[in-house]
Amino acid sequence: MDEIIDIEIVDIKLIEKALELLEEKKFSELRSLLEEQNPADINDVIDELSDEKSVLIYRLLPKELAAEVFVEMDSDKQEYLINIFSDSQLKDVLDELYYDDTADIIEEMPATVVKRILKVASPDVRKAVNELLKYPEDSAGSIMTTEFVRLRKSYTVEESLEFIRSVGVNKETIYTCYVTDDKNHLIGIVTAKDLLLSERNEIIADIMEDNVISVNTLADTESIALMFGKYDFLALPVVDNEDRLVGIITVDDAIDVMQEETEEDFSKISAITPNDTEYLKTSVFKLWASRIPWLMILMISATFTGMIISKFESALAVLPILTAFIPMLMGTGGNAGSQASVTVIRGISLGQVEFRDFFRVLWKECRVSLLCGIVLGVAAVGKVMLVDNFLMKNPEVTIFVALVVGITLFATIVSAKIIGCALPLLAKKIGLDPAVMASPLITTLIDTVSLLVYFYFATVILNI
Amino acid sequence: MDEIIDIEIVDIKLIEKALELLEEKKFSELRSLLEEQNPADINDVIDELSDEKSVLIYRLLPKELAAEVFVEMDSDKQEYLINIFSDSQLKDVLDELYYDDTADIIEEMPATVVKRILKVASPDVRKAVNELLKYPEDSAGSIMTTEFVRLRKSYTVEESLEFIRSVGVNKETIYTCYVTDDKNHLIGIVTAKDLLLSERNEIIADIMEDNVISVNTLADTESIALMFGKYDFLALPVVDNEDRLVGIITVDDAIDVMQEETEEDFSKISAITPNDTEYLKTSVFKLWASRIPWLMILMISATFTGMIISKFESALAVLPILTAFIPMLMGTGGNAGSQASVTVIRGISLGQVEFRDFFRVLWKECRVSLLCGIVLGVAAVGKVMLVDNFLMKNPEVTIFVALVVGITLFATIVSAKIIGCALPLLAKKIGLDPAVMASPLITTLIDTVSLLVYFYFATVILNI
Repeated sequence: MDEIIDIEIVDIKLIEKALELLEEKKFSELRSLLEEQNPADINDVIDELSDEKSVLIYRLLPKELAAEVFVEMDSDKQEYLINIFSDSQLKDVLDELYYDDTADIIEEMPATVVKRILKVASPDVRKAVNELLKYPEDSAGSIMTTEFVRLRKSYTVEESLEFIRSVGVNKETIYTCYVTDDKNHLIGIVTAKDLLLSERNEIIADIMEDNVISVNTLADTESIALMFGKYDFLALPVVDNEDRLVGIITVDDAIDVMQEETEEDFSKISAITPNDTEYLKTSVFKLWASRIPWLMILMISATFTGMIISKFESALAVLPILTAFIPMLMGTGGNAGSQASVTVIRGISLGQVEFRDFFRVLWKECRVSLLCGIVLGVAAVGKVMLVDNFLMKNPEVTIFVALVVGITLFATIVSAKIIGCALPLLAKKIGLDPAVMASPLITTLIDTVSLLVYFYFATVILNI
Repeated sequence: MDEIIDIEIVDIKLIEKALELLEEKKFSELRSLLEEQNPADINDVIDELSDEKSVLIYRLLPKELAAEVFVEMDSDKQEYLINIFSDSQLKDVLDELYYDDTADIIEEMPATVVKRILKVASPDVRKAVNELLKYPEDSAGSIMTTEFVRLRKSYTVEESLEFIRSVGVNKETIYTCYVTDDKNHLIGIVTAKDLLLSERNEIIADIMEDNVISVNTLADTESIALMFGKYDFLALPVVDNEDRLVGIITVDDAIDVMQEETEEDFSKISAITPNDTEYLKTSVFKLWASRIPWLMILMISATFTGMIISKFESALAVLPILTAFIPMLMGTGGNAGSQASVTVIRGISLGQVEFRDFFRVLWKECRVSLLCGIVLGVAAVGKVMLVDNFLMKNPEVTIFVALVVGITLFATIVSAKIIGCALPLLAKKIGLDPAVMASPLITTLIDTVSLLVYFYFATVILNI
């Protein structure tokens, strides 16, 4: 069978060529090269450059393309550019941007820059952007655009096409058009496909889809991103509390949310404070700051496990080999716990598991953990007898020691899976982020339980 | 500020209402209810039902909607339905499906069902599907569709619109049209927006975008999904080795890939064999099977750490308090390692980090780990002196013990971060999946290093 080709999504050759032309000051050749490129690729070039050189590249681009590249840029570079723009240059860029992109840029800028942007912007832009900035972060309102095509149900297809032709160029999408009544209520949608495939004299009311899925301006963006995955939408209408159409969310913005939420979850389950810059572009200090808090919390919470061990110091002194199994017990417990917690955390993130499923989840994990616990417990007894007793001939290791290890492993796995599945759901219930539960708290709890069980059985079975 | 509304992407009320109507055998009411729904929502209802009752619902739906719902269904239900379909019923469904959906369904079916599908399918379908099935899993060819609109550069806008009207209804998207030459080479794209906003007599050659980004049939789907995120495409053309256009990938399929790849990564970094069914729908046995192998590997690999501890049993017997710090050292090491490894694994998955960045990554992690190690090492010395020495007045704990713990913690964190960032990159280099490196191997290595360092400094500084 043919081999899959691993493609790179950053065009290294383009970057090298562009840097070379820049170095040699061959600006007109550089301009012709860049004019042909996608804005995202041009931004990859800019990403490699200092602020000063970025400006050089930026100034080579035709106005419209320059604005498209501007949207792609890091907020630091955007800020730098805005600061060196004259008022009229800034206005030119703002006029080219979609309102939602302008709002996104403003959210990242310091107050003085925001003030200047809003001062320079045309009244239309200012009004639309101010409107968008009112919505809380992570709400539908904060990622929607107000530039969409609005039709009347009395229009014919011909009239609609004419209307789209007159306004379409400034709309973020023309592929889904929204039909509203006099009070601006959303009463239907018509796709460009419907319009193109229908007869010119048909009436919108007859071809529109009137069962429309929409979301409130305050709906959370994570669920909205999932809706795009579920329904294969290209755009989703956003309505206010009175069901009036106020904006739309396009699939590209939904993909961005999906990617951000995923990376946030990855960070949290590995005990890192989320951070939205690319790894290689994040400063050492920033990486340190996002990692040290959880390491610190974990180190301090390990005081408990240390205290438990100190308490049973005398038991360990009698039978030092018991110490040798502690890493295995705690390691397996940690892994068993994170298998359950990550599964449940993802289920919650994907909207597949809710708090109301608490007992279903618990019952499932009980059974899975019994199976895992029995198999691993038996395997551990076998391994201890085979390796430590038979092969390494350690006189301290008896069948009773093996039994203590096996039983403890069993109990550790069962409790690890139960703690691992329950904590994220409880966190969700009380309004905390389930993903934050993944590491520190669960690990500490499982370690504590596993040590207590270990020493209990050691004292009971081995009489120490 | 207003509160974000947590929306549910499964419509519980619809499901309850549908089940109620089904229970009461109010079929015509049920049909009217379902006819208004999105296929994905109807499938949520079917998901709650037995195979027999699913058939009841399925038979109520109008032909076209039924086919759309069929695509959404679990492969088990699809297989059940296909088995009870007559040949002509099966053909009706197949005629309604897009070729790529048929190919996807076939991939999940046992050989006998596949044979029957291909026998019943019309020659066109059979040919197209056989073509698609040739491509290896995870290749562009395996997720593309061959139903797209092909234009000639000599067409006028008017002719193109007429052409779309004649063929569009069977195409998966008409929003991006592809311009090809006599030899079927892709020479440009025209969007429906371009067509709608241009004058009717303009020539395609003049309005088409001729700098087109395309991928080879064998390009890997994970990178393709990232391209959709980067370039905001609605569709991406796929070409063969001779640069002939053979298909397109639409954004909804790219989103599916993105979601699958993400879940695979989450599974792997939590030491679970990936599995594409929803958690609550996965059987206990399947969950067990996806979790036990890694737990077993981890348990067995912990033999090493056990052996190290046995070897230093006498040192621990002299100063039993040393045992109390082992969980903290290993726990912090594990966390520090997974912070680095998950960060790098995600960087690789997102195409932001490549093997050629090896030394950049290593240098970054060295500095981050020095910072983390110094802070935590000092904090550990302080904590041990404050809690164990001063508060708990443990006579065994001296400043030298605290120093051993602090130095070991420092060394553990530095080595954990270096191992954590290096292994995924090395795995990538030799063609293994970086995500698989996250748990077992890294944990075992870090635990081993940390114990060796601990006992080394314990013997040197404490003279035991």
